[in-house]
Amino acid sequence: MSLFRRVGIIARLDKPQILDTVKKLMEYLESKDISPVLENELAAMMPGIKVDASALKELADNCDMVMVVGGDGSFLGAARAICNDDIPVLGINRGTLGFLTDISPHNLQEELDPIFRGEYHEEQRFMIEAKVTRQNKPSGEGIALNDLVLHPGKSARMIRFDLFIDDQFVMNQKSDGLIVATPTGSTAYALSAGGPIMLPKLDALVLVPMHPHTLSNRPIVIDANAKIRIVVCESNLTYPSVSCDGQINITAAPGDEIHITKKAGSIRLIHPKNHDFYNVCRDKLGWQSSYLP
Amino acid sequence: MSLFRRVGIIARLDKPQILDTVKKLMEYLESKDISPVLENELAAMMPGIKVDASALKELADNCDMVMVVGGDGSFLGAARAICNDDIPVLGINRGTLGFLTDISPHNLQEELDPIFRGEYHEEQRFMIEAKVTRQNKPSGEGIALNDLVLHPGKSARMIRFDLFIDDQFVMNQKSDGLIVATPTGSTAYALSAGGPIMLPKLDALVLVPMHPHTLSNRPIVIDANAKIRIVVCESNLTYPSVSCDGQINITAAPGDEIHITKKAGSIRLIHPKNHDFYNVCRDKLGWQSSYLP
Amino acid sequence: MSLFRRVGIIARLDKPQILDTVKKLMEYLESKDISPVLENELAAMMPGIKVDASALKELADNCDMVMVVGGDGSFLGAARAICNDDIPVLGINRGTLGFLTDISPHNLQEELDPIFRGEYHEEQRFMIEAKVTRQNKPSGEGIALNDLVLHPGKSARMIRFDLFIDDQFVMNQKSDGLIVATPTGSTAYALSAGGPIMLPKLDALVLVPMHPHTLSNRPIVIDANAKIRIVVCESNLTYPSVSCDGQINITAAPGDEIHITKKAGSIRLIHPKNHDFYNVCRDKLGWQSSYLP
Amino acid sequence: MSLFRRVGIIARLDKPQILDTVKKLMEYLESKDISPVLENELAAMMPGIKVDASALKELADNCDMVMVVGGDGSFLGAARAICNDDIPVLGINRGTLGFLTDISPHNLQEELDPIFRGEYHEEQRFMIEAKVTRQNKPSGEGIALNDLVLHPGKSARMIRFDLFIDDQFVMNQKSDGLIVATPTGSTAYALSAGGPIMLPKLDALVLVPMHPHTLSNRPIVIDANAKIRIVVCESNLTYPSVSCDGQINITAAPGDEIHITKKAGSIRLIHPKNHDFYNVCRDKLGWQSSYLP
Repeated sequence: MSLFRRVGIIARLDKPQILDTVKKLMEYLESKDISPVLENELAAMMPGIKVDASALKELADNCDMVMVVGGDGSFLGAARAICNDDIPVLGINRGTLGFLTDISPHNLQEELDPIFRGEYHEEQRFMIEAKVTRQNKPSGEGIALNDLVLHPGKSARMIRFDLFIDDQFVMNQKSDGLIVATPTGSTAYALSAGGPIMLPKLDALVLVPMHPHTLSNRPIVIDANAKIRIVVCESNLTYPSVSCDGQINITAAPGDEIHITKKAGSIRLIHPKNHDFYNVCRDKLGWQSSYLP
Repeated sequence: MSLFRRVGIIARLDKPQILDTVKKLMEYLESKDISPVLENELAAMMPGIKVDASALKELADNCDMVMVVGGDGSFLGAARAICNDDIPVLGINRGTLGFLTDISPHNLQEELDPIFRGEYHEEQRFMIEAKVTRQNKPSGEGIALNDLVLHPGKSARMIRFDLFIDDQFVMNQKSDGLIVATPTGSTAYALSAGGPIMLPKLDALVLVPMHPHTLSNRPIVIDANAKIRIVVCESNLTYPSVSCDGQINITAAPGDEIHITKKAGSIRLIHPKNHDFYNVCRDKLGWQSSYLP
Repeated sequence: MSLFRRVGIIARLDKPQILDTVKKLMEYLESKDISPVLENELAAMMPGIKVDASALKELADNCDMVMVVGGDGSFLGAARAICNDDIPVLGINRGTLGFLTDISPHNLQEELDPIFRGEYHEEQRFMIEAKVTRQNKPSGEGIALNDLVLHPGKSARMIRFDLFIDDQFVMNQKSDGLIVATPTGSTAYALSAGGPIMLPKLDALVLVPMHPHTLSNRPIVIDANAKIRIVVCESNLTYPSVSCDGQINITAAPGDEIHITKKAGSIRLIHPKNHDFYNVCRDKLGWQSSYLP
Repeated sequence: MSLFRRVGIIARLDKPQILDTVKKLMEYLESKDISPVLENELAAMMPGIKVDASALKELADNCDMVMVVGGDGSFLGAARAICNDDIPVLGINRGTLGFLTDISPHNLQEELDPIFRGEYHEEQRFMIEAKVTRQNKPSGEGIALNDLVLHPGKSARMIRFDLFIDDQFVMNQKSDGLIVATPTGSTAYALSAGGPIMLPKLDALVLVPMHPHTLSNRPIVIDANAKIRIVVCESNLTYPSVSCDGQINITAAPGDEIHITKKAGSIRLIHPKNHDFYNVCRDKLGWQSSYLP
């Protein structure tokens, strides 16, 4: 009998082949006597199919595991929605290996059987949160599994800000913005901006300046439990934004403070036993091939 | 009365002005009723001066604090020599701030008085060690405070090696070598090779590939307690070396394994109370000035 | 007698000390029997002062040299305004050396005397132009002395586009955008994005990808006479922009083509005889100081 | 009838499958009534086969085209040997596309037939030469198609040197060395050190600092006709080397000057009509795949 009795399903809705995967998944679950619970919008795309459904926010309350069907981006959205629910999450990809979604839709049975027998590896992935304050009053907040990115918002002007770590002044920076990434996010946007790869279990954050006007500004790796404070200088002519996993934006005005800290709790990411982080790196980053003889 | 009764002095010997600083330091110590103990070679450069002397290796046994006069490079050599002695170390620089030597020779009294009253900040800086094995037998070893660097040794050919972390295969790399740096070393050679800055107290290491033949090979930040294993491929035509803090070299033959781990114990680095790591970064890396308007 | 009889003056209007410099400059010119001609808006800021004035666009027609008082940014705006006028331009900075403005306001007489005696160095700096077409019809255009930058415009989403050089397909790129910089612009924004420095007289352009999703996408240096064509993919969800010297934006819709070519004619940049490009680099980029011993 | 009557063959000798390709090539040539002329060492590896042979240096005198069988590395060696001979060169690779060797051994007939009908594209690739002088007297020289690299030679110490371009002082640099690369070499070692890609026909050189101690030292692109002068500082404790295409080394002592200039003449590189430089980039650099969704 499976460890899990009810499995929530979240899926990216824009691709027909994802619906096919969801159907196969439902058949698989039912064959194992496990009840699928579809996220409401997903259920609405499957008229005629009788299945339990639930709003995204309540999904985790109604099941004991959540599956996300889609790419790493879909996983990020799901993770932000269920991050307070202490529930295991499993990612089913769209046919290509992801950093967060390592079950292939082509071998569902083969890959899921062991997991439902309890043969899996569970990883804690921490998240970070941003609180924006204006004249010491809260004016916005957000959370992220990958990264919180200060960027110029609706213009392409550079931003000027002061950076503090644990209340110590670090620098005044003029740049296109700053990426604050978790280990999970270190293989995403931060990597394209010159940040290092951080192993998933590392309890650290990386701060990556984007096109800084001072050439010696480099990525800085800090303890994940440090408190980051960014003060948007009054001299900025536009309103910058803080983007959460590149999916949600919080606006910050000149003079605002952005406080970034580790979020309590963490995502329980489920992997097959044979999951190998370095293998994903080799595959997705192309470490196998070299351009020089 | 001072906390410290006998203070060992180590100095770089190649600059006359360093001897002047040593003399001023001795006068200062004697004025406080603290006995200086000079490292033997340094004592030999001061004929006619009556002072206790000691071999570098025994120096720490004969005193309760060690001062290093010189640049960060001198400090590294001293650190490797006394790393097993659990003794506080203080760096006196040559007139410009160093990452490890933050007492200016121009304000000795002003900067040292509080330290001898016990008003100082003590930081633990861990070190790393490399053990080279040939057919499973030890063939060389070394330690480093900054970095252990695999490089091609006496030729300029690239090296091919396999990298393992905690016995998991990471990649086969063709490059000019690999830098394994501590947080202390992250602001030294590793930085020039594109590595991130890591805050001093972070319990992490960074692995920085040097001119890798695969453009997506990037710096990797790992837990400092991980076990790094580098297998020098049999196909290498030359003997690479492992350099310790850029000062000492261990030779490795094709087929050899290099095991890099955190060293037990750590260096007790003493700073003035007002020491500010970010200030050293701003000063030495030029974070103040920007080239764009 | 001076080579130049009437000198146009353009200035950045937001700093009081710049007006002081303009006044000193007018006094200097009058002492030499040279007539200053102020740009209209500048003249309006100097009520009570009787001086010839002219609209920016006609300024060059009314004089035989133009001086720009301000930083490199002010120079860029002036250059775009007078680029068709075949007139020498001289930059007066705000107290710190610029790449384009190398006359210090503190030594006006000393630095200007030789120039008005004809002892100066004239450099040709070419410009580039962008023409945006929608369904093969012109929909926008702009010019730049430094750079034309395709960026996501009012959002922070990445852009997807196809790049062609001389009608040959180069790549499909997903990134935060693309910088196309002249040698003049290679020491500005392009440098912060990892582009190389190109010597001012080089007849080349550099294409610098911004945070590309493919880690092996690197800056590409091409002949300045090549034709660059960027096709904004239909799949983009937002309207990207093309920024001209970071000062003016042209909007491009999904499906639009952006054609970038060298502009006919060039800016005649005047330098003192002792002007030294490498010296400006050493000064502004901090090449003198090193962070390692 | 073929344009070419006698074709020289140079091959890398360390792989048996290369000999197979050479044999197939000889058969092909003979079937076309074209005489193969083997380089002496290659001929010696084919005992029992009756064929014209020639020393490498005289090879070009004895034929009207040269084929190089091997990787880009083999092509570099051949190019340096025949660079004064004004003879077309064609590269046959070992099964994977090279930047210089684009004929596949698997489709010899199909790819060579058009070439011998005169349907090919000929590209001029210029080379560079280094002359080392000691107290104004020549002490060594070398040439390169890809790059001339100043490196620390038999030690891993950094080098200190002064750089001049057209007799103007550029900077004093402390680094692991300097790469001077042609456009041809810009996709080789220089790329791994952060240099830009330069299109093959560009008349430019790029100077790429290796791990410079000044973080703002960046690659510099200069006119290929400029004169580069590197003065190895007297303070260097070891003898650096200048490596030519990574294959040959010239030693330079402290105090020596290294003069690098464009070599007269150029290599006549033959490509199939459908050769596409960007395609080679896409293939070898992996521009097709992206690690982010």
